[in-house]
Amino acid sequence: MNGSGPTRLVDPLDPLPGVGTYEDFNTIDWVREKSKDRDRHREITNKSRESTMALLHSVSDAFSGWLLMLLVGLMAGSALAGGIDIAAHWMTDLKEGVCLIGFWFNHEHCCWTSNETTFQERDQCPQWQSWAELIAGTSKGPFAYIVNYLMYIFWALLFAFLAVTLVRSFAPYACGSGIPEIKTILSGFIIRGYLGKWTLIIKTITLVLAVSSGLSLGKEGPLVHVACCCANILCHLFTKYRKNEAKRREVRSSATVSYYFPLKTLWRSFFAALVAAFTLRSINPFGNSRLVLFYVEFHAPWHLVELAPFILLGIFGGLWGALFIKANIAWCRTRKTTRLGHYPVIEVLVVTAVTALLAFPNSYTRMSGAELISELFNDCSLLDSSQLCGYKQPVNTSEAGVDNSLADRPAGQGLYTALWQLALALIFKMLITVITFGMKVPSGLFIPSMAVGAIAGRLLGVGMEQLAYYNHDSLIFRGWCSPGADCITPGLYAMVGAAACLGGVTRMTVSLVVIMFELTGGLEYIVPLMAATMTSKWVADALGREGIYEAHIRLNGYPFLEPKEEFEHSSLAVDVMRPRRGDPALAVLTQDGMTVGEVETLVESTHYSGFPVVVSQESQRLVGFVLRRDVLISIDNARKRQDGIVSASQVVFTEHTPAQPPEAPPPLRLRGIMDLSPFTVTDHTPMDITVDIFRKLGLRQCLVTHNGRLLGIITKKDILKHMAQMANRDPDSILFN
Amino acid sequence: MNGSGPTRLVDPLDPLPGVGTYEDFNTIDWVREKSKDRDRHREITNKSRESTMALLHSVSDAFSGWLLMLLVGLMAGSALAGGIDIAAHWMTDLKEGVCLIGFWFNHEHCCWTSNETTFQERDQCPQWQSWAELIAGTSKGPFAYIVNYLMYIFWALLFAFLAVTLVRSFAPYACGSGIPEIKTILSGFIIRGYLGKWTLIIKTITLVLAVSSGLSLGKEGPLVHVACCCANILCHLFTKYRKNEAKRREVRSSATVSYYFPLKTLWRSFFAALVAAFTLRSINPFGNSRLVLFYVEFHAPWHLVELAPFILLGIFGGLWGALFIKANIAWCRTRKTTRLGHYPVIEVLVVTAVTALLAFPNSYTRMSGAELISELFNDCSLLDSSQLCGYKQPVNTSEAGVDNSLADRPAGQGLYTALWQLALALIFKMLITVITFGMKVPSGLFIPSMAVGAIAGRLLGVGMEQLAYYNHDSLIFRGWCSPGADCITPGLYAMVGAAACLGGVTRMTVSLVVIMFELTGGLEYIVPLMAATMTSKWVADALGREGIYEAHIRLNGYPFLEPKEEFEHSSLAVDVMRPRRGDPALAVLTQDGMTVGEVETLVESTHYSGFPVVVSQESQRLVGFVLRRDVLISIDNARKRQDGIVSASQVVFTEHTPAQPPEAPPPLRLRGIMDLSPFTVTDHTPMDITVDIFRKLGLRQCLVTHNGRLLGIITKKDILKHMAQMANRDPDSILFN
Repeated sequence: MNGSGPTRLVDPLDPLPGVGTYEDFNTIDWVREKSKDRDRHREITNKSRESTMALLHSVSDAFSGWLLMLLVGLMAGSALAGGIDIAAHWMTDLKEGVCLIGFWFNHEHCCWTSNETTFQERDQCPQWQSWAELIAGTSKGPFAYIVNYLMYIFWALLFAFLAVTLVRSFAPYACGSGIPEIKTILSGFIIRGYLGKWTLIIKTITLVLAVSSGLSLGKEGPLVHVACCCANILCHLFTKYRKNEAKRREVRSSATVSYYFPLKTLWRSFFAALVAAFTLRSINPFGNSRLVLFYVEFHAPWHLVELAPFILLGIFGGLWGALFIKANIAWCRTRKTTRLGHYPVIEVLVVTAVTALLAFPNSYTRMSGAELISELFNDCSLLDSSQLCGYKQPVNTSEAGVDNSLADRPAGQGLYTALWQLALALIFKMLITVITFGMKVPSGLFIPSMAVGAIAGRLLGVGMEQLAYYNHDSLIFRGWCSPGADCITPGLYAMVGAAACLGGVTRMTVSLVVIMFELTGGLEYIVPLMAATMTSKWVADALGREGIYEAHIRLNGYPFLEPKEEFEHSSLAVDVMRPRRGDPALAVLTQDGMTVGEVETLVESTHYSGFPVVVSQESQRLVGFVLRRDVLISIDNARKRQDGIVSASQVVFTEHTPAQPPEAPPPLRLRGIMDLSPFTVTDHTPMDITVDIFRKLGLRQCLVTHNGRLLGIITKKDILKHMAQMANRDPDSILFN
Repeated sequence: MNGSGPTRLVDPLDPLPGVGTYEDFNTIDWVREKSKDRDRHREITNKSRESTMALLHSVSDAFSGWLLMLLVGLMAGSALAGGIDIAAHWMTDLKEGVCLIGFWFNHEHCCWTSNETTFQERDQCPQWQSWAELIAGTSKGPFAYIVNYLMYIFWALLFAFLAVTLVRSFAPYACGSGIPEIKTILSGFIIRGYLGKWTLIIKTITLVLAVSSGLSLGKEGPLVHVACCCANILCHLFTKYRKNEAKRREVRSSATVSYYFPLKTLWRSFFAALVAAFTLRSINPFGNSRLVLFYVEFHAPWHLVELAPFILLGIFGGLWGALFIKANIAWCRTRKTTRLGHYPVIEVLVVTAVTALLAFPNSYTRMSGAELISELFNDCSLLDSSQLCGYKQPVNTSEAGVDNSLADRPAGQGLYTALWQLALALIFKMLITVITFGMKVPSGLFIPSMAVGAIAGRLLGVGMEQLAYYNHDSLIFRGWCSPGADCITPGLYAMVGAAACLGGVTRMTVSLVVIMFELTGGLEYIVPLMAATMTSKWVADALGREGIYEAHIRLNGYPFLEPKEEFEHSSLAVDVMRPRRGDPALAVLTQDGMTVGEVETLVESTHYSGFPVVVSQESQRLVGFVLRRDVLISIDNARKRQDGIVSASQVVFTEHTPAQPPEAPPPLRLRGIMDLSPFTVTDHTPMDITVDIFRKLGLRQCLVTHNGRLLGIITKKDILKHMAQMANRDPDSILFN
């Protein structure tokens, strides 16, 4: 509401406040926003020729993009992600015990300070006390176990309660993974506050709490949301981005490169463990004394026969992915439609209690998801004392004939126990994740999916290993798996399984394979991983075409045009546009001849967000398009500030005001708010082309003409409804425009 | 010319041969092609529900894409690239001598077979004889030198002559790097034969010859062209791709991932050399006996102070890149416009002779570009005997105080000689590449650009090293470069320089930095490389916005809309469209009322490739768009095969034939060839939006309307001409449509 005088006319270069902005839960017009930015840029460039100050402004404008990205990177990538990691680590350990020399140390740091403990005895350092030791004074016996058990459940419930309460009280948008919403927002939808500062703060805190509570969820997805919030908030520092929705979306998109990078980093760290194991095996450190560096290459780590189990893992990943999506969506729909959705706090507490109760007794579910995956990916060396490496030691080395101390060995008691526990953990994780994802706490899906796949893979890998050990003379193993050789690596199976499950759930096969290719650099692991992820995608696609994020977008009714989905039907634009045959005619404004009162009546009698402007009702020749919001704001403003504007004043969209009788009130000129270049397609345009145009140009609506006459309008919502109808789904599930 | 009878009407589902295809040097319509493919796909899917055979067809159709990519990968990636590599290696060595135990062995393979030679004496193995030894019987003295010199020039001229003659006689499109043309083809332009089998065969052979002749050129760019040819030829195996220009472009695009991958592989191999050196230094193999694997990490390989020389290298790279482009384009334009262009064979022979004459005496120009870069990237170890590592040996180890045998040392005589030779090589490479790139032989630019940058970087690196050695107490070096420490790595400088020059020439900074990030995985080298490539891009952009490929596209007048180039001017569609103010009205057809004779006269009196169809000349309301080629083919065909079609027959584009007098000849119905959904924009549409639409949708033309009336037409050529005009360039340089 600037005070530039009552007789001020609407000027397109300096619009009224509010004109050109969008309402909540609406879709932006990309073309228009981009054009606005180009105008701004052009103005700055032209001015920069005039003075030095303006030149500096132009340079700083050009660099602000770089500076912004740097700030986002520093803030989101380093500070927040690092902080969340450290806090979650500490709080996860807090569930088991506390450090005596300072409660702020986690288990690992606590034991670092004591010099005498070796790596082996790390877990038993005296400074770290379990709750049983602190409370009951003993660490042995059933009583101590029960104390630890109860404290574990107590902390888990406390963390979960805090998380869900904070989310509900301060930032309801902080729940979930956020990726479905961000995909929709990046495609041009507006959800106010979704990327705001409260969401950022609360999501950061509650993410730590949710991860620490031991629920079956990961932190990678929510981290992407956090990075997007950072980008969005930092945008406000720069005029270039503050005023332009499309420009801001570009920055956020760059921030979601983090959508890809955390996944990459995740794989990279797990991959490092696997490679370290392989390398250790290959370099033969206690053998000959050759210079080690040039022997860092694997010898044939997988055999063609192993493709069969890898493909099996792909089938498992695909089946689980598809079933998980179906079950999770069904559960979320139940939550939305029944009374269950009214008690989110109780829901979270019950699920947390069940998780903690079932997870504690099994060491593989008690540890965090990332730790579990890391352990499953790891290969066994001779010194490894973990249960997973509980093989029978070779009685005398001469028996095996070769001095390869890492050869396949028969499973011992420890390994059998581990396998049982893993099998139980697999069932547990598969079931609990379905009801966990979608609760009102921040929750990612990468880690749980990978954990399921890694467990399945490891089980299959150990199975293959034992099969090979006991049947090394059979047809399939002869020749490549002689006794004493190290031919099957269960860790690789775990990795393949993790990729297959992640692929089945998210359907990001290409990104996955690209990441793998980048990590491995060659064809060493690319074939097993590609075989598994491709199989997984095909199997999952056969059971349902959508990934988990698309399914959640659909569930929430967001207007999102999937970029890869092909439009398979042969409809034409005329079949999709409104008005349909039999409907009342399209509500249009004429470029002159309508009064302010008539325009107001027309606009208010409908709920459309925009109106085409035509030459006349008879000719229906298209002139432009005005937005409802802009019309109402302009009329409102003119009535207040412009002399003589009454209901009888003529509304004029033409360049020159037509001649009027002298006694008539002054006309209201609204050409400035009209979009003079609305998009049009002809009624015969196939819908596949129309959908393509909407997708590529980011349109919000498009007008339909026939032989030069305006016929109707197609909005993004119309397209989504039509697509839903074609797929035999409920078209009313598309909620927003 | 199918024989389906003379009375056959034009049916859109089974078009006449020729209808819907394109002429040479024309732009395709992406939207139309994509729509055609969707129709085909839909038909197959619908049929697949009917019979098992059709289902199998549908499945094989879906898998043919995968199979095709696999074949392209095998053929281009492995067979051709590997073959070219081996052949070029052998022929390069042939210029210096021959292997006695089999002429088909190259120098390295020849000496492999002799067991007694150590790595050090590799070059002097008795099986390998230089030409002087073979012809004159001696390898020492000036006479032997002259014999070797002459033989070197003889082979170089022979290879170059063969290359240019083969290109001229069999496949003129095989010359150059091919990347500018491929960029244009992928954007939708048609150059028949550019990706044909003759181009493939001749380019493969002549690439080997050109590389072996010692000219200052690389093989990475032409390899991309070869891969594209493979993809194009293999497309003919599958109906899906044979019939659809847009689909084929998709396959070719995937093949040009090779545009990115060879570069990546190139960097990877050079990077490996550098890392090997660093690692060797860090792991300290002769020191303590710790397990080596866990020490593979660099200790601070670069210091913040070194950013200054890195940025200097960036400035050098940008300057050289911009000047190289200007000089090369000026030289190519001279070749195009003067008599020089009439003697390509003589030009190639002269340049080859000059190159060989000047390259032979200097060992750094005599070796191949890739070898040179590899040597420059390499770090010096104590055992290294090359001239570049000709440092003074420390007299006694206790002097330095530390046992680090790889510390910075003072330059010795060998190194001074090497520096002189490198400086001469730098000048030589900088000049000769300008006249080499663009000759009528296959020639890439990656290796020469990187060589220039690597030489400059190494020179600066050694300079810095000596500066630090002699001034380790000065303000800038104190604290991080104490005596006996190994603080400056000339190899890293060479790498940074190579990246800077490559960035300056091609402007692919983002790809370069992504490659670097992938290779290094962290921030270890990313900062130096980013600093250098970004500086290089900014400096080069300040001197001229185009990369070398865009400059060559412009030079050749191809219709190519640069995807990143922003349209900076505030023109509207009405300013760009034809007819301009004062021109005769737009040539249009009416949907009825015109006779065959009138249509023919109109079409033949103009040279336009297409004509809008309107309701009537008075209303100018748009109905559709027909292509010139389709109209002429259809009329020609109808006259031959359809009874009663004469010049007086009415041409009808409407759905229902209007009532005609009974004595009139039967009408010619042409609705089938009309595009019912031509793209339109309004006259007020800003050109930046229009350009965006052309780019994103891959349009060939777009019609311009005002208030629903047809006003004019904009083609891709019009846009390019307008952009040339705005940039004060000659609009007539845009040659094709």
